[in-house]
Amino acid sequence: MSSKATREFAALNQLTDTAKARLEQALDHYLPAHSAASRLSHAMRYAALSGGKRIRPLLVYGAAQLAGAPLAKADVPAVAVELIHAYSLVHDDLPAMDDDDLRRGQPTCHKAFDEATAILAGDTLHTRAFELLACHGDYRDGSRISLIQHLCQAAGVDGMAAGQMQDMLAQGQQQTVAALEEMHYLKTGRLITASLQLGYFVAEKDDPSLLANLTEFGDAIGLAFQIQDDILDVTAATEQLGKPSGSDEKLQKSTFPSLLGLEQSQQRARQLCDQAQQTLAGYGPRALPLQQLAQYIITRNH
Amino acid sequence: MSSKATREFAALNQLTDTAKARLEQALDHYLPAHSAASRLSHAMRYAALSGGKRIRPLLVYGAAQLAGAPLAKADVPAVAVELIHAYSLVHDDLPAMDDDDLRRGQPTCHKAFDEATAILAGDTLHTRAFELLACHGDYRDGSRISLIQHLCQAAGVDGMAAGQMQDMLAQGQQQTVAALEEMHYLKTGRLITASLQLGYFVAEKDDPSLLANLTEFGDAIGLAFQIQDDILDVTAATEQLGKPSGSDEKLQKSTFPSLLGLEQSQQRARQLCDQAQQTLAGYGPRALPLQQLAQYIITRNH
Repeated sequence: MSSKATREFAALNQLTDTAKARLEQALDHYLPAHSAASRLSHAMRYAALSGGKRIRPLLVYGAAQLAGAPLAKADVPAVAVELIHAYSLVHDDLPAMDDDDLRRGQPTCHKAFDEATAILAGDTLHTRAFELLACHGDYRDGSRISLIQHLCQAAGVDGMAAGQMQDMLAQGQQQTVAALEEMHYLKTGRLITASLQLGYFVAEKDDPSLLANLTEFGDAIGLAFQIQDDILDVTAATEQLGKPSGSDEKLQKSTFPSLLGLEQSQQRARQLCDQAQQTLAGYGPRALPLQQLAQYIITRNH
Repeated sequence: MSSKATREFAALNQLTDTAKARLEQALDHYLPAHSAASRLSHAMRYAALSGGKRIRPLLVYGAAQLAGAPLAKADVPAVAVELIHAYSLVHDDLPAMDDDDLRRGQPTCHKAFDEATAILAGDTLHTRAFELLACHGDYRDGSRISLIQHLCQAAGVDGMAAGQMQDMLAQGQQQTVAALEEMHYLKTGRLITASLQLGYFVAEKDDPSLLANLTEFGDAIGLAFQIQDDILDVTAATEQLGKPSGSDEKLQKSTFPSLLGLEQSQQRARQLCDQAQQTLAGYGPRALPLQQLAQYIITRNH
């Protein structure tokens, strides 16, 4: 998010400023500086506190606000989704996986530490996410269980991890658009949608249609996010991305631009953004930050 | 466990027969044969269904029985602790960690599949454990949360994973007995104790002194288990262990036999076994399987 608050993104920028400050403080608080293995806690903090767009936590805060919860109630799930995201990046970057040396302009975790430490740091970020949801924050038991359920299901063998497996198996192969969409839905979309669902659950209100709308919104912006990622991998420079651009082509990955062309990819991202915004049209000003976030996702340049 | 039911282990063998049958069926049921990434579910099943002593699930069943719960209520946590154990083995066996080719007499997961698949299969076994506790079985909300809390805390950065980190950092270094005990308490003991605690929680009874006694029992047999493991690494043959014997010496690891000598190690294991059995002495015949398990742990030869 640009720090210049343009009128187009005013509501979003306001939420972002508050949410990012809350998140960084909560991450610092909930990631142990000391533990039974200090090298491990250092690596966890290195991986999770090194910046990033923080889109998923922002979605938790945005959905919590829309659902009528105080932002403080969103701190724990915001940290939890970011830790799941951070764990997945640490493991995906490993030499046996995507073999990336740079992440957010910094050496990846296994480069800054070593492979064994990175594997374990990913593992403990992963456990810590569930530990936070199980042990921290002030929620009714039923809400707490819903939070854990939705995060587990989004992250596991029918979610994010399956998407990463599909992504690796597809390298060097020509894919259909449908297969590419499924892979991205699993790898990225499910955690994005879960972020919105977690924001809903912290409000502890029974509003199934809001939950359904947030789910639909999440599914649409998740795919739009990935299409934009593919577009940026073609059009942006390495220093802009904080990771090597052109990496999809290097790995012979099918992408939306390679299958649909650049212009049609941009059009599909715009359609998804419109569809997402439409879903929340009935909720008035409280939905504005999320609607602007949908717009931001397809216009961002890094 | 020997299939010959000796009189010494009669109660244990009876529980073992029932528990193992329940566990294998529950593992098969709760590990997806198909998923969004079939290679991933195959690797998960390969890692979790390839046998093993199943000590941790047995502890869940034993504690559940002692606490007065029907064994069926222990199925889900028994599977969950075994999946956490299986995930940790898959990751510990990786080339960047302990670099083991054999596990339970079979190729390790990264040898049977590949490193990337093994990393992801470990990850999804990990997530699946929490998903089971969050979504399956019939428990009151508060009990479900206690189950998740105790498993998270035992597995994470102040538990099992920290123990693995300490273990790797200690390679090639002379350790004190106290440091060695702490490492094993974290790496093995905490999950063993959590298994007993999970068995307690499925009974859904409020009996803090039973919980405390099971915790003390678990802490003692966890350490005894590890001392026996160290002893077997010196005294047993590779085919008996299903993994290379002498591997501690190869990795220049401090062990109980290397620090205390063989005889004193055996004596310490016996003391811990006595102490564990004493803790459950007041519970009568329902505690017999667990008490015999303590005995088995220090007399097993594989």
